[in-house]
Amino acid sequence: MVNDNVMAALLDFRRQRNWEQFHTPKELAVALTIETGELLETFQWKTDAEVRGLLNGSSRERVVDEIADVAIVLSYLCYDLKVDVDAAVLSKLKKNEAKYPIEKSYGNAKKYDEH
Amino acid sequence: MVNDNVMAALLDFRRQRNWEQFHTPKELAVALTIETGELLETFQWKTDAEVRGLLNGSSRERVVDEIADVAIVLSYLCYDLKVDVDAAVLSKLKKNEAKYPIEKSYGNAKKYDEH
Amino acid sequence: MVNDNVMAALLDFRRQRNWEQFHTPKELAVALTIETGELLETFQWKTDAEVRGLLNGSSRERVVDEIADVAIVLSYLCYDLKVDVDAAVLSKLKKNEAKYPIEKSYGNAKKYDEH
Amino acid sequence: MVNDNVMAALLDFRRQRNWEQFHTPKELAVALTIETGELLETFQWKTDAEVRGLLNGSSRERVVDEIADVAIVLSYLCYDLKVDVDAAVLSKLKKNEAKYPIEKSYGNAKKYDEH
Repeated sequence: MVNDNVMAALLDFRRQRNWEQFHTPKELAVALTIETGELLETFQWKTDAEVRGLLNGSSRERVVDEIADVAIVLSYLCYDLKVDVDAAVLSKLKKNEAKYPIEKSYGNAKKYDEH
Repeated sequence: MVNDNVMAALLDFRRQRNWEQFHTPKELAVALTIETGELLETFQWKTDAEVRGLLNGSSRERVVDEIADVAIVLSYLCYDLKVDVDAAVLSKLKKNEAKYPIEKSYGNAKKYDEH
Repeated sequence: MVNDNVMAALLDFRRQRNWEQFHTPKELAVALTIETGELLETFQWKTDAEVRGLLNGSSRERVVDEIADVAIVLSYLCYDLKVDVDAAVLSKLKKNEAKYPIEKSYGNAKKYDEH
Repeated sequence: MVNDNVMAALLDFRRQRNWEQFHTPKELAVALTIETGELLETFQWKTDAEVRGLLNGSSRERVVDEIADVAIVLSYLCYDLKVDVDAAVLSKLKKNEAKYPIEKSYGNAKKYDEH
């Protein structure tokens, strides 16, 4: 998720505030839905063109901060659950390749159960 | 987020299916809220002890797969928006340190605006 | 939210299964984010025209079921917290009218803090 | 969802601001996930006892306002899609009764596919 130095800084931040007690896996999953909602809010009511404008303008920092919040929570969760993100993603990607064969999925975003 | 090899595999998967067209920043943010909801669902109605049991049992794989789905979408989003996750997290962490000074926040998860 | 007969049926369903114990306010709020994620998923990757097609076709029932799930959880929450939805909505609407004065908001969905 | 007078007030609010153009079904579903995230945030990091304290104290109004925001968006969505909430909930409840038979579900919140 983040490199070792950044993860160490995240863990320091949490330890210095004695916040490990709040970070149960379930509460982190709750935090993740809250943070992704805040990220989505930065794009709310906006067309794709307006979102592009936002990302090239002075509001980019706010969007990047919201992405960072999602990444922070996901990093704590992976650390606490001892999930190797790279391995987990590769393993899931293999399953997705089976669920979405190229010939059925090319240019078509239908769910595998709608094919 | 993920290492370069895994990111390359994610990009291959997307290109082979011609799915870049669906991955606007807004649609990826939508996908992120959907995937975090699915992750949270694996813990739904469960106490912390039950969640621990889940993570040590045969359902662990399902949880890890849901975490992977969140990481996949976040990886695409960071790649497409050219967000350096490590730098973004460090920058946000600096802001959080200012918002949550240790002396006010120790053992206390109140929002900065509730202090 | 729902009429008295429907609310009575919802309460019977819950009582017969002895599920009141799971329905803490926080867990219901968690359920609400999960259910809204499932509703949003029915529209995922789709353009507005495709969503319209969906709503006029055989998939309409699935969308309506997902809306119902959201309404069910919201109904339990309002019942348990003794929230009168009509009164709550009117009170919030008053605040929104102050936050979004017509002259500033006409045809413009900017957040009140972006004006 | 809300009574006819309240719905009329909601529709007036929207019409006066010329906001119908933003309220596509998909954008309303997006708004619903954002608003439920804000509701959940009022309970974040809190135990059930702390949530109870919150609901009996000066923060109750904030929680009720967030519930109202969810109800507002859901009301627009049902109105626009011509969904009769009472009928939709009763129909879904019938399906839930079949998915969760009392003898298997009594005191047990396992998903139907985990039974």
